[in-house]
Amino acid sequence: MNRLDLRNGKVEMVHGSGGRAMGQLIRELFAAAFRNEWLDQGNDQAQFSLPPGRVVMATDSHVIAPLFFPGGDIGSLSVHGTINDVAMAGARPCYLAAGFILEEGFPLADLQRIVESMAAASRAAGVPIVTGDTKVVERGKGDGVFITTTGVGVMPPGVELSGDRARPGDRILLSGNIGDHGVTILSLRESLGFETEIGSDSQALHTLVAAMVEAVPEIRCLRDPTRGGLANTLNELAQQSGVGMQLLEREIPVREPVRAACEFLGLDPLYVANEGKLIAICPVEQAERLLATMRAHPQGRDAAIIGTVVEDVQCFVQMETLFGGNRMVDWLNGEQLPRIC
Amino acid sequence: MNRLDLRNGKVEMVHGSGGRAMGQLIRELFAAAFRNEWLDQGNDQAQFSLPPGRVVMATDSHVIAPLFFPGGDIGSLSVHGTINDVAMAGARPCYLAAGFILEEGFPLADLQRIVESMAAASRAAGVPIVTGDTKVVERGKGDGVFITTTGVGVMPPGVELSGDRARPGDRILLSGNIGDHGVTILSLRESLGFETEIGSDSQALHTLVAAMVEAVPEIRCLRDPTRGGLANTLNELAQQSGVGMQLLEREIPVREPVRAACEFLGLDPLYVANEGKLIAICPVEQAERLLATMRAHPQGRDAAIIGTVVEDVQCFVQMETLFGGNRMVDWLNGEQLPRIC
Repeated sequence: MNRLDLRNGKVEMVHGSGGRAMGQLIRELFAAAFRNEWLDQGNDQAQFSLPPGRVVMATDSHVIAPLFFPGGDIGSLSVHGTINDVAMAGARPCYLAAGFILEEGFPLADLQRIVESMAAASRAAGVPIVTGDTKVVERGKGDGVFITTTGVGVMPPGVELSGDRARPGDRILLSGNIGDHGVTILSLRESLGFETEIGSDSQALHTLVAAMVEAVPEIRCLRDPTRGGLANTLNELAQQSGVGMQLLEREIPVREPVRAACEFLGLDPLYVANEGKLIAICPVEQAERLLATMRAHPQGRDAAIIGTVVEDVQCFVQMETLFGGNRMVDWLNGEQLPRIC
Repeated sequence: MNRLDLRNGKVEMVHGSGGRAMGQLIRELFAAAFRNEWLDQGNDQAQFSLPPGRVVMATDSHVIAPLFFPGGDIGSLSVHGTINDVAMAGARPCYLAAGFILEEGFPLADLQRIVESMAAASRAAGVPIVTGDTKVVERGKGDGVFITTTGVGVMPPGVELSGDRARPGDRILLSGNIGDHGVTILSLRESLGFETEIGSDSQALHTLVAAMVEAVPEIRCLRDPTRGGLANTLNELAQQSGVGMQLLEREIPVREPVRAACEFLGLDPLYVANEGKLIAICPVEQAERLLATMRAHPQGRDAAIIGTVVEDVQCFVQMETLFGGNRMVDWLNGEQLPRIC
């Protein structure tokens, strides 16, 4: 059997058949890139030990278009996204599983580039991809490649975070500037060229989270403002905790090129997706310590306290604007940016 | 906000936006069907305890076409498939995650039917769906619905199974008749009508596995013959263990209507996918006890010892035919049935 033609070859239906060709694709492309002791087990599942503690599990299907973008690609994004979902519980992500849905005709060279990017992201994060699955659908029944990653992790003792724990008086912290990911993708799709000065912020935040929960185990909730952006994620948390929120626009960091691109595109950066930022809510007494901890980490250098949790039976999120007025920051209504992750 | 129109509504791009509409879809359709304490946590991940022991993780993307078939649908299949992948390690499946990729325009009524079928399969198996994700792609970029399920489970103490543990002299057992799933799907696709007397064998095999590993902890390997069928799965195991296999055709159970349909369709039942059968390999000394244990379980009533592991550096799988000849049972070459799971 000839080796897979990774230069000019394409995904064929037979690569999803369970037979010889699928075995070859897994061996020469996936296993070659992800290589680790668990995949070497060669079974339809992986076995591993977990440290004692409550287990956390998260799953995310990735359908981003385009597949490649400044700052990453669907491969690295699928690793970062799921690591972050596990980490937002306060947990340490330990293992990943990956399911691929490939479209017939997709270039193997692109698939290899994506898989190698996943492997690099997984190695950099120290979270191995230990099991996986590959399916192929006919041309026109998919869109190149979709990747579903699932992560498991373990909670450090004494940490308990949940979206329903915010209390009036708590402070709301943001780890850095918003809008980069969404603006990059939209600019690329519309061939606007902003992406030459902006890139996705896609990154794995678990080491930042580990530092935060170690320094301030009293943190109430963590969440990453992905689809729907900061505005939508804060509304989710407000609703879940049965509280309101009062934000300060001047404290919310937005980089200048992102602000300019948003103005040009008619987007509100509050609603634009991020893939490497987090929101933290903690009691007022620990807010300064948490802020200092975040700023001491490279991923939290631009962290800021952006607002306060308030009593509000209507669970409204409001914001004092740059000009001193007050505006409602409502849920995302309708569709701002499809297929952003 | 009006309730979701589950009768005439369709999936829209906005259902994947992360905003209000997605929240509604999750609440009124997914959470309503899956309802459990973990989903009620309302976070982007689930937290749970696992019993002590080695952890097993498996993931499977499901792209079957058509979505509904006699004996199940993509929803029940996606629960059974992943439960079985976890169980084939000898493990007890504990929790499932589910990622949905929906195509714009897909009828919400069909989605609800699928989700309720998943919920029923999960409840029947006692393995809850504790976390999930929903994405939407444009019309023509998907195919109705794809579901990726990931399962975690725990190994009972003292059990160690792997595809590389088969040894010459071991016996090969099969839990029941083969070919039903693949023949059902193909007949349905080609509108041949065989599916009126045949249905998919899709079922969760974890209670059968639990009985087997309890009675015979010496089992070497378990695997479910899905894509590529019995022939391909046995070749995988032979290769992984570095052994040959000698099968007896007369011992391999194939139901009469399946045999007839295979003849009509030009299919070899050995290569046709199953979704509710397993292969077990165990030392000869335990083979009769294992067979009796399997036959005492409703899912193993038709179990049989179908062959013997032999020494063979070429790792060939061979079979004594009904007529006393000997034939090679090679790997699946090419594509027999696309999108069977």
